[in-house]
Amino acid sequence: MTESIKLLQGINWNEQGLVPAIAQDWQTGEVLMLAWMNEEALALTIEEGRAIYWSRSRQALWRKGEESGHVQSLRELRIDCDADTVLMKVDQVGGIACHTGRRACFFQKLEENAWRITDEILKDPRDIYGSKP
Amino acid sequence: MTESIKLLQGINWNEQGLVPAIAQDWQTGEVLMLAWMNEEALALTIEEGRAIYWSRSRQALWRKGEESGHVQSLRELRIDCDADTVLMKVDQVGGIACHTGRRACFFQKLEENAWRITDEILKDPRDIYGSKP
Repeated sequence: MTESIKLLQGINWNEQGLVPAIAQDWQTGEVLMLAWMNEEALALTIEEGRAIYWSRSRQALWRKGEESGHVQSLRELRIDCDADTVLMKVDQVGGIACHTGRRACFFQKLEENAWRITDEILKDPRDIYGSKP
Repeated sequence: MTESIKLLQGINWNEQGLVPAIAQDWQTGEVLMLAWMNEEALALTIEEGRAIYWSRSRQALWRKGEESGHVQSLRELRIDCDADTVLMKVDQVGGIACHTGRRACFFQKLEENAWRITDEILKDPRDIYGSKP
C-alpha cells in the first residue's frame, strides 16, 4: 500500500479524516451515490480497483457490494482542485447502487415544491440483503 | 422562504448544519464541482433557481458566480436516499465552474500512480476575478 499512500499525501481530509467520494456511472454519466473515504479506504480503492468506502455509521471499511454483490469497479479516479473530494467513474455491477434497490441514490426530485420519487425499485432489498432476524 | 424551509425539514444536516451539494452539467452530465450548503443556502437555491452555497472558509453565503459571473442556473434538484446529499443539474454560465479557470474542478486524474492534469485553463483566473492587491 506504500505507493498509494504516497499518492494520497496531498489529500485534504476533513476533521474526521474523511473526504466525500462521488460514484458516477462511467458510461451514462449518472451520479449514482456519494459516500465517504478515509485514507485507508482510498488507498484500497486504488489498489483493488473497486470502490471501498468508510462507513460512518458502522465505523468500518465498507467494500461496496460486499453483501449485495453490487460491486463498483473503478474505471477512473479524479480529485478536485482543492484535493478534498474524490470522483470515481465506475462500472456498477448489477446496475443497482442504492440500498433501496434502485439504480442510483438520487431518486428524489424536487417538483412543484415537493419531493417526487422518480425511479423504480429494480430489486427488493430483502432479496438483495436477505432477511435479517 | 417559508415554503422552501418546510421542504427542507427532512434533510439530514451534518454536525455543522451542512450537506454536500454536487453540481452536474445538465447537458453533458459532467460533474463540475462539490461544495456545501446550509439550510439557508439550499432554500435560496430553490427560491432563486441558481446554486447558492455556504462557503466554509468565509463562513458566508456564496452565490456561485457573484464575482466571476459563472452562475449555475438550476435545471433540476435531487436529494439522495438518506437525504444528506444534494445533486443539482445546472446550466453553467460561461462554461467554467472552477476557480482555476477550468470547466470543472475534477481536472486531476489518477494515471500510472500519479495525478495528471487533464483539462486546460480556459480563462486566466486574474481575468475572471481581477487582480486583488
